Order: sequence, then C-alpha cells, then structure tokens
Amino acid sequence: MFSEQIELHGHIIDSLILPKVLDEILSHGGEFRILEIRIGQQRTDPSYARVEVSGPSPVVVDDLVRRLRLHGAEVMREVEVQLALAPADGVFPDNFYVTTNQQTFVRIEDQWIEARPAIMDSGIAVDSKSRTATALKFDEVRKGMQMVVGHHGIRVVPHQRAISKPGVFEFMASSVSSEKPKSAVIREIAAEFRQAKRAGGKILVVGGPAIVHTGAGEHLEKLMEWGFVDLLFAGNALAAHDIEHALFGTSLGVDLLEGALAHEGHENHMRAINAIRGAGGIAAAVAKGILRRGVMYRCVRQKIEFLLAGSIRDDGPLPEVIPDALSAQRLMRSKIGGVTLALMMGTMLHSIAAGNMLPASVKTICVDINPSVVTKLADRGTFQAIGLVTDLEPFLRELTDFLAGPVKEVEAHATAAALPA
Amino acid sequence: MFSEQIELHGHIIDSLILPKVLDEILSHGGEFRILEIRIGQQRTDPSYARVEVSGPSPVVVDDLVRRLRLHGAEVMREVEVQLALAPADGVFPDNFYVTTNQQTFVRIEDQWIEARPAIMDSGIAVDSKSRTATALKFDEVRKGMQMVVGHHGIRVVPHQRAISKPGVFEFMASSVSSEKPKSAVIREIAAEFRQAKRAGGKILVVGGPAIVHTGAGEHLEKLMEWGFVDLLFAGNALAAHDIEHALFGTSLGVDLLEGALAHEGHENHMRAINAIRGAGGIAAAVAKGILRRGVMYRCVRQKIEFLLAGSIRDDGPLPEVIPDALSAQRLMRSKIGGVTLALMMGTMLHSIAAGNMLPASVKTICVDINPSVVTKLADRGTFQAIGLVTDLEPFLRELTDFLAGPVKEVEAHATAAALPA
Amino acid sequence: MFSEQIELHGHIIDSLILPKVLDEILSHGGEFRILEIRIGQQRTDPSYARVEVSGPSPVVVDDLVRRLRLHGAEVMREVEVQLALAPADGVFPDNFYVTTNQQTFVRIEDQWIEARPAIMDSGIAVDSKSRTATALKFDEVRKGMQMVVGHHGIRVVPHQRAISKPGVFEFMASSVSSEKPKSAVIREIAAEFRQAKRAGGKILVVGGPAIVHTGAGEHLEKLMEWGFVDLLFAGNALAAHDIEHALFGTSLGVDLLEGALAHEGHENHMRAINAIRGAGGIAAAVAKGILRRGVMYRCVRQKIEFLLAGSIRDDGPLPEVIPDALSAQRLMRSKIGGVTLALMMGTMLHSIAAGNMLPASVKTICVDINPSVVTKLADRGTFQAIGLVTDLEPFLRELTDFLAGPVKEVEAHATAAALPA
Amino acid sequence: MFSEQIELHGHIIDSLILPKVLDEILSHGGEFRILEIRIGQQRTDPSYARVEVSGPSPVVVDDLVRRLRLHGAEVMREVEVQLALAPADGVFPDNFYVTTNQQTFVRIEDQWIEARPAIMDSGIAVDSKSRTATALKFDEVRKGMQMVVGHHGIRVVPHQRAISKPGVFEFMASSVSSEKPKSAVIREIAAEFRQAKRAGGKILVVGGPAIVHTGAGEHLEKLMEWGFVDLLFAGNALAAHDIEHALFGTSLGVDLLEGALAHEGHENHMRAINAIRGAGGIAAAVAKGILRRGVMYRCVRQKIEFLLAGSIRDDGPLPEVIPDALSAQRLMRSKIGGVTLALMMGTMLHSIAAGNMLPASVKTICVDINPSVVTKLADRGTFQAIGLVTDLEPFLRELTDFLAGPVKEVEAHATAAALPA
Repeated sequence: MFSEQIELHGHIIDSLILPKVLDEILSHGGEFRILEIRIGQQRTDPSYARVEVSGPSPVVVDDLVRRLRLHGAEVMREVEVQLALAPADGVFPDNFYVTTNQQTFVRIEDQWIEARPAIMDSGIAVDSKSRTATALKFDEVRKGMQMVVGHHGIRVVPHQRAISKPGVFEFMASSVSSEKPKSAVIREIAAEFRQAKRAGGKILVVGGPAIVHTGAGEHLEKLMEWGFVDLLFAGNALAAHDIEHALFGTSLGVDLLEGALAHEGHENHMRAINAIRGAGGIAAAVAKGILRRGVMYRCVRQKIEFLLAGSIRDDGPLPEVIPDALSAQRLMRSKIGGVTLALMMGTMLHSIAAGNMLPASVKTICVDINPSVVTKLADRGTFQAIGLVTDLEPFLRELTDFLAGPVKEVEAHATAAALPA
Repeated sequence: MFSEQIELHGHIIDSLILPKVLDEILSHGGEFRILEIRIGQQRTDPSYARVEVSGPSPVVVDDLVRRLRLHGAEVMREVEVQLALAPADGVFPDNFYVTTNQQTFVRIEDQWIEARPAIMDSGIAVDSKSRTATALKFDEVRKGMQMVVGHHGIRVVPHQRAISKPGVFEFMASSVSSEKPKSAVIREIAAEFRQAKRAGGKILVVGGPAIVHTGAGEHLEKLMEWGFVDLLFAGNALAAHDIEHALFGTSLGVDLLEGALAHEGHENHMRAINAIRGAGGIAAAVAKGILRRGVMYRCVRQKIEFLLAGSIRDDGPLPEVIPDALSAQRLMRSKIGGVTLALMMGTMLHSIAAGNMLPASVKTICVDINPSVVTKLADRGTFQAIGLVTDLEPFLRELTDFLAGPVKEVEAHATAAALPA
Repeated sequence: MFSEQIELHGHIIDSLILPKVLDEILSHGGEFRILEIRIGQQRTDPSYARVEVSGPSPVVVDDLVRRLRLHGAEVMREVEVQLALAPADGVFPDNFYVTTNQQTFVRIEDQWIEARPAIMDSGIAVDSKSRTATALKFDEVRKGMQMVVGHHGIRVVPHQRAISKPGVFEFMASSVSSEKPKSAVIREIAAEFRQAKRAGGKILVVGGPAIVHTGAGEHLEKLMEWGFVDLLFAGNALAAHDIEHALFGTSLGVDLLEGALAHEGHENHMRAINAIRGAGGIAAAVAKGILRRGVMYRCVRQKIEFLLAGSIRDDGPLPEVIPDALSAQRLMRSKIGGVTLALMMGTMLHSIAAGNMLPASVKTICVDINPSVVTKLADRGTFQAIGLVTDLEPFLRELTDFLAGPVKEVEAHATAAALPA
Repeated sequence: MFSEQIELHGHIIDSLILPKVLDEILSHGGEFRILEIRIGQQRTDPSYARVEVSGPSPVVVDDLVRRLRLHGAEVMREVEVQLALAPADGVFPDNFYVTTNQQTFVRIEDQWIEARPAIMDSGIAVDSKSRTATALKFDEVRKGMQMVVGHHGIRVVPHQRAISKPGVFEFMASSVSSEKPKSAVIREIAAEFRQAKRAGGKILVVGGPAIVHTGAGEHLEKLMEWGFVDLLFAGNALAAHDIEHALFGTSLGVDLLEGALAHEGHENHMRAINAIRGAGGIAAAVAKGILRRGVMYRCVRQKIEFLLAGSIRDDGPLPEVIPDALSAQRLMRSKIGGVTLALMMGTMLHSIAAGNMLPASVKTICVDINPSVVTKLADRGTFQAIGLVTDLEPFLRELTDFLAGPVKEVEAHATAAALPA
C-alpha cells in the first residue's frame, strides 16, 4: 500500500467537507485512517482533521490527492508547484493543471500565490519574477510560458457554508421545481438585487429572445432604469426581437398586444435588422431617432454596457454583434470583473458561456420555463445558484413589483434572513 | 371495385371538410370521383359535394364510410340504423357503434333522432316506442337493450367553422407554446368567462394540488366569490392541500409565505386530513368553525357544487371523497349538463376524466407548466380547446386582474372579437 | 435557552448523518455544542457523537428533536412512548406520530419494539399486551386503539451507507439525466434482477399503458416468462391497451407494426374491453381461448399475481379492475410484503401509489421519458431509487438482452461491483 | 371595397390549398367570391379556381395578396417584379421581398425566372442582363445591386401533396409524440436513407455532443462506414467529446462503459482538446496516429466533409473549428447543395442553423429526447420534417440494425409505401 497524509481545516464537518473527502477516498479505490481530529465545540469554531490516504498504487493515491484538493485538502509536506513550458502558442504542456472556478493558490518559493482570475477550465501560467499566477484560456497561451502541471503545490479554497443563517442561495441550491410557490423566492431575489447594489457589486443580466416573446421586455427596461443592470450579455436574437418589437410592435411577426391571435412571419424581423444595418448600428439608430424604445434603446440611453455575441443561427446580424466566438469570449471575460450577481433568463447558450467565466463566488439565478435548461445550468459547478422553472414575463413582473415596493420591508426581510434567529 | 356514394353539406370547403374526406379516402386504400360539386359564391352560402368512394373490397369501402361519417358524410340512400340486443348487463353487442363527443343522430323509422348526451366512447341504446336514443357507458347497459351496431343510419354533425371572425378558441386550437405572450390570450379568456355567465352557461373548474402549491388558491377563491365557478371537480389532493394551508399555512409542509425556504414534510398534511375526518367532513368542519378559509371553505360557504374523486395515491381520504371510480364517474356525468366553459389546471387525471364526458361544443382551457400535459389534453378530440403552458399562480392572478378590471373594456374587446372586421 | 442531549451512533460521518444533523439544528433556529465525539479510525469502525441541542423555547427544541429523529438521533434519557386513544373509527388522536418508510422502533416498558410494516404516512397502534406496534392507515383505525403521539420514545433507523464499494443504487440516487449513457446502468439493473431472484426476493413491476404504446409489451412478456416478475400493479389502461393489441394488433387504434402511419381511434379499444366483459374477465377470456397473447395473457398463464386499480379516467373497466381506491390500496399493501426490487415504468399515478407503500429498503427503478415524472418519483423519500429518463421500448429491450446474455458475465460484474476494489 | 382577382392551379383541394386561402382571406379582414371553379374528377386531375379578394382598403388587399402568394396564388394580371437599388453594402432596400424556403420565381421582361437557391430569410438580387435571380443574405449584398421589393411579379410554388400514397414524411409531419411506437418509423427512415443514396442525393448529418454522451458514436460511425453520411455539421463540442472518448474512454469525464458510475470531470475534456491543438488539428492527429478511432477519425479516414462551427460556449476550440459565425454560415451554404435528406440529432443551435439554409424540398428528420426541441425544429416551415422524441443511442442502434439487415425487405417495404394500394 502507498499512502500520503492530508490535512483539512475550517468548518469541515458542518460544510460536509470531511464526509465528502472520506466518500471520495472509498469511491475511488482508496482507504483512509483518521489520524487526528479536532472538532469545534461551538458552531463558530473551526475544525481540523489529519487523514492518511492509502491505495494499491502510487497512481491511485495521486489521483485521490488530486480529487481531494478540490475539497480543500492539503498534502502535509508542502512542496513547490511543478512547472513546464508551453510547447507552442495556444497549447498547454502535457499534464497541465485544469482550474476550477474556485479560489486557487499555487506554492512558489515557499509562498502561496493566488491564481487570478478564478475561472474554470483554464491552465495557470506562473511568472516567477513578479510572483504572479494567471489563469489562461487556450488562445492566451504563448510558447515558452511557465505553466503549472501535476497536482502538487496547489491549494483550492472550497466555498464554505455560511456560519450565520443561510440565505436563499444556500437553501435553494439545485432545488429546481415547477411546483413550488415562487413569490417568496422572488422576494428574496429582490432583496439580493438591492444588497448587491448597496455593496457596490455589478449585476450581469444574460438574456434570450424569450424575454421579448413573452412580453417581459418592459420589465427588464424597468430594471435598467432603476440601475439594477450593469452589464447585458445576449445574442443577435434578443436585440433583433427587441428592435422588431420597438419598430413594428411584433416579435417574429407575433403582435405582442394581440398575442397569439396575430399572424406569424419573419418579415418584420428581417426589416428590423435591415433598418438598423442601414442606420449603421443600434447606437446610431438611437442617435438618429429611428429606435425610440425597448431594451436596446434603454441600454444605449443609460450607457449600460451590452455585448452581443454571434452564433451560426443568426439572421443579419446587427452591426454591434461580434461574430467571432473567440473575440466575443475575450470581451466577455474582460467585462465580467466585479460582477457579484448574475441573472440568466431564457438562453442556454449564452448562460453556459457566461457561467463558464464566472468565479464560484458569484450568485447566479437561472430562470427558464424548461426544467432541463434550469437543471443543466444549476449543475455546472456553481456553488451559489438558484434555478426557477417559470415563465419569464410573470417572473420579471413580480421581481420589478417587489423592487418598486417600499424599500424598508424588503430590506428588513433581507436583514432578517441574514441574521441568526 | 366496390363503391358507395356519399354526400357532404355545409361549409365543407372553408371548414376543410371536403379535403379531409378526400385525404381519408386516399390514405386508406380507396379512390374517389367527384360526381357533383356546388360551391357557395359567398362565404355565407353552404356548399355541396357528391363523391363516389370505391375500393378493392366491401370491407375497405365499409371502413371508409365509417371514417367519413366522422366528418359528417352521409351515405346517399338513407337506411335505418341497425340494432342488436345487449347480450348481458354491462356488455354491448358485437360491432356496437362507438360514439364521438359530437352531436349524433340515428335514423329510426324514417326520422333522425338525436342521441343524448353527446359523450364519447359510449354505445347508443334506442327505445323505439319513445323514439329516444341514449348514449350509455358500459355499466349502464342492461341485458336486452336495443343497441346501435354497424355504421348505417347514423349521422354525425361535425363542428363547423364559425362564419364570423373566429374567436380565441378557433385560433388557438392545438397551439401549445411556452414562448408566446400570454396576456392577450388571458384577456380573451376573461372575456369568455363573462360571456359564459351572461349567456347563462355553467363554468366547470377542474383542478390539481398545484393550485395550492404555487400559491394560486387565493385567486381561485376570488373567481368563486365573483360567481365564475359553478362546479369544481378535483381529487383528495387539492382539498387536502388547501385545508392544510388553511389550518397550518403550509402545503405538503412548505410554508407558502416563506416559500421554498421552509422545511418539507408530510406531517401537517396528515394532521389536516385527520382534523377533517375528526370533524366529520369538510362541510361539518366549516359549520363547526374549524375550517375558516381556503378554496374548500369558499365552496361550502357559497354553495358551489364540488366533487372529489378518489384515487389509489390518496392519503386519508377526506370524508367527502368518493373512493369508487364508477360512482364518481356517474356523479360527474350527472352534474356536467349545462357546462359551456371548462378550465382545467394542474391535473392530468381529473382533466382527462372530465374531458371524456364533455360534448365537443364545450370550450375548454387547459393550463399546466408541463407542455406534454397540455399537448395531451388539447389533443383529445376537443374541437374548442386552448392550451397554455405556464405557471398556475401568475395565470390565475392575471385572469382575476382582468375580471376585476372595468367590465366595459373587456366586453368591448369581446364584442369586437366576435364581429367581422 | 432550553436544551436536550442527543446521541448518534454508527457511520455517522461517512454517511453524512452528523453534518446533516448539525445543519438541521442551525437551519431551524437552534444551536449545538458537541459534547463528545469518537470517530472510527478505520472505515469499518462505527463512530459516536453526543450533542447538546439548544433553542430559544421548548417548542423549538421539541421541533428540532423531531427532525433529528429522522436522522436516527436518540434523546439521551430514554422515555416511554406516549399513547392516546383513537377518538373514533378512522380518526387518529391529536398530535399522532406520522411514520416515515424507515425502520422504526417505539419504547414500551423499557423495550424497543419494531413498528411494522415500515410504511410512510401512517400512525402507530400499540398493543401493550402482545407488545406489538403496527403502522395503520386512516381506514384501519378503530375507536379506542392506543396510538403513538408526540416524539418521545421513538427511534428511526436511517438507511446507512454500505461499507463495501457501493452499488448502482447508492451512486445513481437522484441522478436523473437524459444525457448519460444508459447501457452500463441497464447492465447493472440486470445484475440486480438476477441478485434479487437469487436472494429469494419478490420483484414488483408497476406499469402504464405506454409500455404497450411504445411496443415494449413483448419485452415485458419475456421478463415474465423468465421468472423476473412476481407481481404486477397497473390500471385498467395497461390491461385494456395490451388486450386491444392482442386482439386487433393496435393500441388506441395505432397499429404497432405500421406505427404512426395507421389511423388513430378508440373503436378497437372499446371493442377489446367489451370482448373481455362479455367473456367474464381476463382469466375467463384466456380460459375460453379468446385472449391468446400479450402481457395479461402471460400473467394468467404463468400465475403471476396482478392487481388492476381503477381510476376515474377508465373506460369500461375490465372486470378484474378494482374501482374502489380504498379496497385497491388495502390489497396492494397486502401483496407488497417480500418485495425487494420494484421497477416502475410509464405511470405516475400507480408508481406514487406503490412508492407510498414500500419500505425504504426496497430498491426502486423509475423509467419514464418525461424527466419531471422521474424527478418526482425519485424524490419521494426513497433512499435507494434510480431514475432513468428514456424510452420504455429500448430500455426493456436492452434489459432483456442483458438478462438473456451469458449469466456468468453479468454475475461476475455484479460481484465485482459488490466487492471493494 | 377594393379587390383583386387571384388564380389557383394544381391539386388545390386535396392539398388543402383552396381552403387555406379562403381561411387567410377571412382571418385578415377580407371577403371572397369564388368566380370560377373546376375540380378534377379523378385524383390525378389538377383543379383550378379563380377568386375575387376584396377588403376595406388597398392596404388590406395588398397584405392579403402577399399572404396568398405563400400558398401559390397568382394575381391575374401578371406584372413585372419591382426592383430597387441596395443603398449600401450589407443593406437591403426598404420593403425588400423576404424569401421563404420554397421554389420562387420572379417576373422579368415577361418571363418567370427562378430565384436560386431556395433559402429562407433572404433578399432576391436580379441581374437583368444574364436574366438571373439570386437569393442573398445580408452580408452578400453590395451597394447598387438590383433587389426585388414589394409583392408583385413573384410566384411561390408551394409544396404539393404527393398524388400517390404518401410516405412517412407526409404522414408524420408535425407529429411529435414520445408515446408512439418508433420501430415502424425508424424502418421507414432506413428506407429513406437507401432511397436517397440510390437517387444520388447527399445526406447531411447535424449532430450535438449527446451523440457521444449517450454512447451512440459507434452507430454513427457505422452509418459513415456504409456511405450513408456525405456531410457532417457540428460544433466544437461533438468533436471534442468524441476525441475525449477516443483518447480516454470518457465523455466529460464520464466513462462510457462504466456509465454514470464513473466520476465526472472536465480534465480529460481539456486534455483531449490540448492534444489535438498540439498535433495541429484533427486531420494531423489522425495522420500522426494520435487519433485512432471515433466519429472524427472516421470522417478523416473516409474523407467525409465535416464543418465545425464555433460558439461562445466552446472550450479550446479544436483547430478545425471556425470561430467566425459569418464565415461558418457561408461555408455551410456552399456545401449544402445536393443535400436531399438531413438527420438532425441532439443540437438545437446547429439544427436551426442548418434548417435555415435548406430548401423546403429536403426531407428532414429531427431526433431529440426533449420534446420542445423537436417541436421547435419541426415547426420551422419545413414541409417534410419528421420529429422523433427519443434517446439518440437506441434510435441510431435501431437505424443501423435496419440498414444492416437484408436490403430486399427494406426496399420492398419502401416500394410498397410508394405505390398506391
């Protein structure tokens, strides 16, 4: 048998970390012996455990150590992180360390250096001189960069359970149901919106065209007016439907006032795109007085940053759309800093893309009428995600109603939720 | 080749009846020759067609005639309906005629007699003396009754296209989508509710426990208060959840004000049922002041007829629940007369059961967040069905908002919709 | 502050029981202090913890103790169970103890007596003379019975994690996804079928009409032929569709060989029911040579017990159907003893009804193409449930292929899965 | 009242065209008078109708004429198509004619010229010298091109009902159900595959990563080996998952043999992408012996054209992926000529993108386990589309089983289906 000793610190019992670690060991062919355990007597005291992990081969033990690191385990003897050179532009060295979206440190010359940003599915480049560690995507790698390989000298800080009474994000996590009452949850979300603004965080909205189809555009505009949207990620479709609605009152030919009673058709959709192309873009169309209402109009008027990423199913596209996926990804990553709350509605493509870039600490709310979309988004390793299976229009209507309501009540509630009973 | 001649009358072209008939003939191994056709010059003029149907065997032609009858085709030479004796209680004779939910006539002694009620999947018993024809379910058949067999001497009146500008039921039919704006449709539904009451029709609500889970109970109570519910079909679950909510504020242990934040559990559910059993029933619990609010309370107080049908998944059940399916079906059939509008929400079992009993002329609205439920209900041969894929709570909230609004506007809209442009 | 001391025994750390207990305390307004903890050094050693639970009022502490019992916590000073008399037939006393589907003991005269059967949502009647405790449904209660009330003197044995390498039921639990490869899981299910038979357990199949619609009936027949079905729970619909298929080759008028190409219709459905009613029942129809193939034929021929429970949406029904829900429930409960494996396919109504009766120890497999059905079934407090989102026909085809394959390979695999690596 | 006369030719009654035209007129505020009608006496004879369309304003009549053109109606006095200059690169003139995916002719100097290709949501550029009409996308427009505007001088040839017994595509159209037996339909699809190859058509497969997740990759490889795939449209995800599986045996970390029992993780996914980037691409990796199996390997080895379009949710991407959406669209359009059969599996993004490019005459099969995806794809104006709600793995397994079976039987069936009974 081969073995290593690991240490666990913090709220390892009530955060379920110790049990998960023991579970991982057993599930992947290992054995454990608890060498030492100190459990906090009160709920604010941290705990400590030292565990011997053993297995039939060094490969098994190595694999186990790699898995346990995801839960914050540290190997007892602290070794330096291992590095290797990137063999070519855009290519990581073999056995490169693949990041999670959690806070991560690497051991360089007896120091723990934080790798930034906390973004999943990246490699880590180390600059020994400046003692910095940077998470890089494939296209950011340059030949000869020093990249982290293997699993030694790396420490991942798992998201720990809040000690105080947990909020809506901890309770709702992965709780996706269409049958629950939503008013209470939406009221909590309203409180989170206020809190995010008070704390100076940025709010990201990721949206699909169903926002316009379902008639929810006017509610999103209100959120924008009231300062609750700092950044909008969407595709050509949301913008084109919104502009079609602004110019013709329809969305894919459906009259939003007359509803399903009107005739369907793509004509207005195409004419709307053509009008904006003729004007030279959305901002230009606003400046020229062609575009006078709607979500995109509001973005331009209130100087809310928006980023429209292209896709192969786009008609047009509108001039502001970025058709190159790599450029769009780079821009999205550059804008995402400072976001603390993300609301994703009615788009799987853009929501997954944004989710892939957000650190685990960002609170994320996914809303879709299709439960499989919500399940998929809520499952992507996000530690603080709420999934709501519901219609976008009534969801946004109720959210804006709560935000329009008396501040005090909402805040009082938010405070109550944050305090121990 | 064997052949028969059929006749078609009415708005057979703009009701799509002629093309469907020709389609049926070709699709089932037959050939046709149009012998005579007279098409109305104006949209109010009826049309007429005489068609020769031929096929390789008498069986094929007979089968074709049977199918064409469903579209209102009449065989040229009018023969008497064929009758045979029911061989035993609860058993139809071989080859018995299976009814649809459309208006149906049988030819007895050179007269067309209407079979009543217009209910699907029944046999027709003929009383020659009184010249009546009655649609009977299996358990209503008695040995020796004269039952209709074969397909001669029977005329089905298909639902024809309204000549004036069609309403929401004709346009929406089978249009099930979660992505459409619903406000316009819900406004139309509100107009239908008002119109049904003005015309003296009865309104049936069929509901599942999700009405309570989603927090929509209070809206349903308003509908009841305002006289928009004449009859409620439900199961033990709706009543038990409603009463749990009335007594404890929870639904299956979920606090409806605190939402998903509360603890789940069956205890309150069981205690609520026990309390009503102890009181001797729902009505008794209202009389004794034990039950003081909720949907069931409102039914008792306002003398709205309700029928709770049992199922094998019931806890309890509550004393008013009818555990025997055949008794429940008989009672449901006896109460359904006069219903002109049916609203089905959040229950497939009870909705299909009610749908099986309603004549094709009843306007039906199916609401569920699961699109497959809506599709299934909207497909069951109902000619005037709307399916809405949405959350029950915001649906009922918006419906009651429209009904609470100024009558004039809604009515004006309804009138506009009913008039040709 | 008010407090009580609780004890936890067993694999409380790697079964996640201790963390869940601490979580419950914090989440419901309590505080904890760990007074003593002994953790097994090896994975086979049991652990022990003594925890002081405190809260702002006796009500809060009482509520906490009730919740913690569900996790197997015992209150330190062992008191007798509290009893009260049932006030009337069919009515429990106030504050009666509501059972779970886990093994439960009550303390009577300083002894722990097991309450049987382990069935959820029941009360417990105690017979002090015979020292027995019986879980009873509402309709089994008689006035004057001694019933357990409150939460003292009750011990629930939670399902503990298997110490050896866990099998498919522990890993898959609540893992509902339509995107995973299913072959490996179906191979494991085949191994469970063999193992259940070898161990002498009974296998229950709960099925809906989609088994016949999707053309999977022949595979279910094979399972029956090979002795893998001991008990079939279904409704009128499965039997009627199966018999329609046996007599006419169609299911609701759809020709199962020609598939969606054939005409839809209810006629054959009604005639099939009529034929069986005329014969005097399914068994009689088999005896008379009228019914010669299909699932129900196979049940009769191989003397497999079947129970058809009625519902309000039934046509007919067939003579063997039990229309009274309470009688059907009683019969289901009487037959369910000895079942160790349950396969539920294509019916939410019957699956929930059966699930409500099964003890937590029964391994349950839910298969449906609708993910919301699978989620709902897998969530109902079953500790060993697998949910598969897939088509019934290919699922049963592959399952029978594995069962028809060489026994050795399948068994070898099952053994491998059951042994530590 | 204002009016125009329109003519309808062909199988206007049994193709439902006449009734639809009358329906459109009434539904959009118009009136009609049938001036002349000649109906074929036999099913092979074409029919003819001349109809006067009138309305309260020229705008209404104009709108009606535009709608009726979609059904093949021609305005009596044939006028020239109207043209206007494109005002700028990438911008259509105001009121440009928006194409459908049906065969379309424009009237130039008293001649009907076909606009090519038949692609939806484009404008039509006319070159009077060469007498050609070309459907162009936004980015293909150059300043000063002559573009078709308005609705005069345009003739759309609607897809007409086959006169012989219709095949699976006509019957199944828009019939999306998870409850139907699929074997018969899959057998018909196999026959369509053989027929497409015999007729020299190209077969397009559009696929998502679920093909690999569900373990269906090996079946797709067989289709490729047997020559049933001429063109593959996919994204980075399908290729990356396939290559991960080829190199490591996993898909997103899930072991496809051990199924859901294995650990999830992104590491293998990232390493697979890195390995191919290091090798210089998929083709290079095959040449170097790094990639030795799987769908992409098979494409390279058998010289099957594949096109991987990028998206913002991509990891990597693989070197062959085209990250620019406009370039990818142009390439897709350039390769799509000659395709007569398209099989779309497990991807909404790529399927809609491909569907937007295909003429109405291409037979399309959409397979997904999510009914809403299938409904959305089957609704997109495709006249010959089959939607199947089922698992990809059993679907492809059964399809390859049929294609591997005796040719004669399958062909005999296909022939039978194509002949009148």
